[in-house]
Amino acid sequence: MEFVTGLEDRKVKTLEELEREESVGTEVTVEGMVHSIRDMGEISFVILRSRDGLLQTVIQAGSEKEVLSEIREGQAVRVTGTVFKEERAPHGIEIHLANARILSKPEEPMPIAIDKWKLPTSLEANLNRRAIALRNVRERAKFRIQEGICRGFREFMTSQGFTEIHTPKIGAKSAEGGANLFKLQYFHRPAVLAQSPQFYKQMMVGVFDRVFETGPVFRAEKHNTKRHLNEYTSLDFEMGFIDSFMDICKMETAMLQYVVELLKKDYAKEVTLLKIELPNVEKIPFVRFDEAKRLIAEKYDRQIRSPHDLEPEEEALIGEYFKSEYGADFVFVTHYPSKKRPFYAMDDPENKEFTLSFDLLFRGLEITTGGQRIHDYETLLKKIAEKGMDIEGMEDYLDCFKYGMPPHGGLGIGLERLTMKMIGEDNVREACLFPRDMTRLKP
Amino acid sequence: MEFVTGLEDRKVKTLEELEREESVGTEVTVEGMVHSIRDMGEISFVILRSRDGLLQTVIQAGSEKEVLSEIREGQAVRVTGTVFKEERAPHGIEIHLANARILSKPEEPMPIAIDKWKLPTSLEANLNRRAIALRNVRERAKFRIQEGICRGFREFMTSQGFTEIHTPKIGAKSAEGGANLFKLQYFHRPAVLAQSPQFYKQMMVGVFDRVFETGPVFRAEKHNTKRHLNEYTSLDFEMGFIDSFMDICKMETAMLQYVVELLKKDYAKEVTLLKIELPNVEKIPFVRFDEAKRLIAEKYDRQIRSPHDLEPEEEALIGEYFKSEYGADFVFVTHYPSKKRPFYAMDDPENKEFTLSFDLLFRGLEITTGGQRIHDYETLLKKIAEKGMDIEGMEDYLDCFKYGMPPHGGLGIGLERLTMKMIGEDNVREACLFPRDMTRLKP
Repeated sequence: MEFVTGLEDRKVKTLEELEREESVGTEVTVEGMVHSIRDMGEISFVILRSRDGLLQTVIQAGSEKEVLSEIREGQAVRVTGTVFKEERAPHGIEIHLANARILSKPEEPMPIAIDKWKLPTSLEANLNRRAIALRNVRERAKFRIQEGICRGFREFMTSQGFTEIHTPKIGAKSAEGGANLFKLQYFHRPAVLAQSPQFYKQMMVGVFDRVFETGPVFRAEKHNTKRHLNEYTSLDFEMGFIDSFMDICKMETAMLQYVVELLKKDYAKEVTLLKIELPNVEKIPFVRFDEAKRLIAEKYDRQIRSPHDLEPEEEALIGEYFKSEYGADFVFVTHYPSKKRPFYAMDDPENKEFTLSFDLLFRGLEITTGGQRIHDYETLLKKIAEKGMDIEGMEDYLDCFKYGMPPHGGLGIGLERLTMKMIGEDNVREACLFPRDMTRLKP
Repeated sequence: MEFVTGLEDRKVKTLEELEREESVGTEVTVEGMVHSIRDMGEISFVILRSRDGLLQTVIQAGSEKEVLSEIREGQAVRVTGTVFKEERAPHGIEIHLANARILSKPEEPMPIAIDKWKLPTSLEANLNRRAIALRNVRERAKFRIQEGICRGFREFMTSQGFTEIHTPKIGAKSAEGGANLFKLQYFHRPAVLAQSPQFYKQMMVGVFDRVFETGPVFRAEKHNTKRHLNEYTSLDFEMGFIDSFMDICKMETAMLQYVVELLKKDYAKEVTLLKIELPNVEKIPFVRFDEAKRLIAEKYDRQIRSPHDLEPEEEALIGEYFKSEYGADFVFVTHYPSKKRPFYAMDDPENKEFTLSFDLLFRGLEITTGGQRIHDYETLLKKIAEKGMDIEGMEDYLDCFKYGMPPHGGLGIGLERLTMKMIGEDNVREACLFPRDMTRLKP
């Protein structure tokens, strides 16, 4: 009988291995996609693209191997050659080719100049040809940063005793905000897609005390803006035994500190490539909702039009204000009006008009909504009645409170929004591999 | 201005901290849910449940604090007392209570005896009251193991240079297996839920070489069995520049080795609690599909009824055979017939009736399907035509091949099935927090 025993050493070197090991002067085998070819007559530069970057290889005229003359852009190749120091090449090395194996060939030349530093296309054209456009090294680097954020979130949550959960995305119609739900048929029964794991993560606080989830959420909102997606990845956590909603803010701050350190450590290449200015997360100012409104109304001489909500322009101005006054990239805006918060938000016992909740703004954009939740069964029922809501569909959620829940709170973070602000883009579609918006359902 | 600077030291100790630090003889504050109370007259044992286990606390008769007499099951409490050695208590310690704060109270007594070692309910009753049933420490431990598997998968993939991706779950109707798709309306357009990230992960091989995703998939299959869920979590990876589909098997084997080590290291409590027999992953036998069929037909004196597919009973017998012959918990079954594999599976050049693909069986159950994919554009078009399929809806997928793709392959793992077999359960619903099947849409 034959067995698989795991990974074996590969003869093919990764770019990372070439950089780490003293490879200059040795013969190596590497592989990649032929990203671009510059034919200079006597000599050809063949740039290979692999997962860890670009690598310059060189074909000298009069090379004996015929296969070298068959190398074309878009091919997948495995090549052998000697490593030379070359300051002007990426990573300071180049490989003088001795042999090659062509692993696959394209049918047609690339329809977009993916080898340009900045893609010479509109965002619309980029998204229409997304899987090709992402072969540009700057484009794909954005999603390495996104990976770092998501990974950092999970690693930090795990280190703090949170349990990862997977909650269902298809559910029976629930009472939570019916307007923005996508509807579907589930074996001849009406069902909806989850707009957040809110109920489930609260329910799981009664089981694991601290839980987190990273997964898709679905919003049938008819917004067509630079900030909205109809499907996005939500980073959620929920924790029990809190003393105040500030415990949630502290946890989020510490998580962001961890993420920024992880980006510095493991994603330095991409941070450099994209010229990312990592945000200041040492200390994050917090300000009450009504105070924030007053501050910017005064400073920027604006009228307060919607007293219960922040307009996007106000969020941007709050970001501007705290950046200029305190050098802050993030601001916690706290105590949102009860009118505009969901029923499960805990009211401030000192003033029932406001809740013990917050948003986190990052460079003027809301990336998080969170706060303390009601944990007392009777209080919850009363609040639901006050909001004029029906408990139908909420029985399982309410049961958890009936049988006892600890004081708790949590938050949800939009991964694409956080990524977008981190990489300095101004359209959330730039930070989503395959965006879904009101007009875009493919690719 | 006030700032949030991150986490501060908490006075409240976790069970883990009590175990790690030399706490016997000291006064400590801990918190948790009151899991059960045993009133012995002179003395009461109050068992607290927190995220890291059960903790025995003791109230002695004649205690001065009135609040101690108000402690009831289902409450969330924060208590203070002195730590004593007590061999018969969980973790070998107990706390003699001096004071308490009742943080929240339940409305009604627990409807299920969650403090029993094994829940005294049917699976059906358990699932109907899922969020309560999971408060049983054995029930919740299953999902700590699930976390370990998922976390191990990601950590290993990251260590091997795979990039995490998030692909859309709502899409335009695609050609891949239309029968089992959930349909929905997307702003007045027909759309479907993704039954796998197959197309997207292949497309992203052209960008990142190696990618992985952990996320929900949706199957509108009309199966009502112990092995099927209509929504489940899929662990997917896809890698470029492979020499053979065996590279995928090797990667999966190494991943499983990593996961088992992680479970031993970080989930030892749960492994012990559930009496889990961790599987043998040092070496995994592999056998051709037709050879496996022949082996068990011979050994168990069975007729081969469906020559192109494995029946569930056959999978179970293959598991049994390789367990008894080689002590193997896993078996790779390779070279599935082309007839039963999707169009993108690469045919074996030595015999076009079979594909360069495999399933991985774990204790007799298929938990993985994987293999090498066609990477050549013309070959792919030809195969699609041979299968009598239409390329409509596949344009973006096909474009990736038109412009060049490396040889590649990958796999998908059902997280719930893998968990179920790991914890020794025989119904996949036991390994899903909130299962979705043909009749169950809530909680």
